[in-house]
Amino acid sequence: MAHLGARIAHVGAGEVHVVLPRRPEVTQQHGYFHAGATSSIADSAGGYAAFTLFPEGSSVLTVEFKINLLAPGEGEHLEAVGTVLKPGRTLTICRLEVYGVTATQRTLVAAGQQTLIQIQSRPEP
Amino acid sequence: MAHLGARIAHVGAGEVHVVLPRRPEVTQQHGYFHAGATSSIADSAGGYAAFTLFPEGSSVLTVEFKINLLAPGEGEHLEAVGTVLKPGRTLTICRLEVYGVTATQRTLVAAGQQTLIQIQSRPEP
Amino acid sequence: MAHLGARIAHVGAGEVHVVLPRRPEVTQQHGYFHAGATSSIADSAGGYAAFTLFPEGSSVLTVEFKINLLAPGEGEHLEAVGTVLKPGRTLTICRLEVYGVTATQRTLVAAGQQTLIQIQSRPEP
Amino acid sequence: MAHLGARIAHVGAGEVHVVLPRRPEVTQQHGYFHAGATSSIADSAGGYAAFTLFPEGSSVLTVEFKINLLAPGEGEHLEAVGTVLKPGRTLTICRLEVYGVTATQRTLVAAGQQTLIQIQSRPEP
Repeated sequence: MAHLGARIAHVGAGEVHVVLPRRPEVTQQHGYFHAGATSSIADSAGGYAAFTLFPEGSSVLTVEFKINLLAPGEGEHLEAVGTVLKPGRTLTICRLEVYGVTATQRTLVAAGQQTLIQIQSRPEP
Repeated sequence: MAHLGARIAHVGAGEVHVVLPRRPEVTQQHGYFHAGATSSIADSAGGYAAFTLFPEGSSVLTVEFKINLLAPGEGEHLEAVGTVLKPGRTLTICRLEVYGVTATQRTLVAAGQQTLIQIQSRPEP
Repeated sequence: MAHLGARIAHVGAGEVHVVLPRRPEVTQQHGYFHAGATSSIADSAGGYAAFTLFPEGSSVLTVEFKINLLAPGEGEHLEAVGTVLKPGRTLTICRLEVYGVTATQRTLVAAGQQTLIQIQSRPEP
Repeated sequence: MAHLGARIAHVGAGEVHVVLPRRPEVTQQHGYFHAGATSSIADSAGGYAAFTLFPEGSSVLTVEFKINLLAPGEGEHLEAVGTVLKPGRTLTICRLEVYGVTATQRTLVAAGQQTLIQIQSRPEP
């Protein structure tokens, strides 16, 4: 996240938004956001969304995700929205959406679904 | 790819390997490769693998991919292997595998599947 | 569809609902709807939803789908909802949801995402 | 499985084959095997493959699967092969392949990947 230049823009119970501003490092030769950056922030947004519902002292790992790249990643920034579809003690399932955002438009550029697992952090000695 | 520090290590007909050396920018606090980096090089390896089978003057876009993160991304470098399962005039399907590699071990850390579309580049005027 | 005993319950532009009544053939030993039946009607609902947006004389094929089974398939019937997320001349992407329905409850039992391709039917000779 | 007319054709540690003979109930108007039948036996083959590695008294549930339909489901029967890619105490990941088989040919008609969870069966009272 830090490496990409992304930041958390909204945190609610079971919903997190991650914003990635346009920078040369995350765009390709045509100026579109790179698919790798798009899917990385989608994965992060879902992971944080699941984490908001977890008990203290636990952590989260992505089991798997699937993402469709729907449109060129255009815009001044990307906004990834992770939403918990089904919380669980072991597994949590999230919906992933990524929008390309300009001053006047918000276009769905990617959509996916993700499975996460809750990990009990080991107690300190 | 360049931003992550990845490079193409092997190109065969329908099979491409991409290598990502360990660097602080692509690992997380525990020293494992980040899931975002793992899935990005998997996506790239599949895209290049499909592209090796395309006619001149065409380009490739990822339609979608699905990836399971199977084990912590450990090793001196990651090696992503993209293999064409089914070539096609419009759509090509690839198998994606990512290995964590040390001097003595090669561990499967991620596996996935990807759908790509062949785009006819516009002729120059 | 006919073999499973499913029927189309709603058709709108880009949205189709398919209903599968409880029958011994589509439930397992515990009385839940079988995962195979659940995913089959999800796939059908998405295929029909895409088809509502296609021009006359074309047909639809599923390229791929991904589905998470979120809860036991309980209820008097299942209702699969296919919704077009992104229409396209070649590829259409749908969201898939399956609900277990009783007189008083409607529970999300599966959720997925699907890629479909529009096929030009061959003209008759 | 029984409803479709499918049967287990091979059981090894971490690998199971399921065969589905051609019957009018599992084929569509063009004589191809239906996508729903194809994905159902793929899901079943993966579930059984995972189950072969589980301890006694446990059972298996599909968390999710993703499948690409690569070619028309032709042949005298379909053979679905489920292979464990990564076994685990909680989650097991399988590769799914479905072949259309005639006396002289074996064609890959679908390929996928699946996540399964091991459930501890409740002890009898």
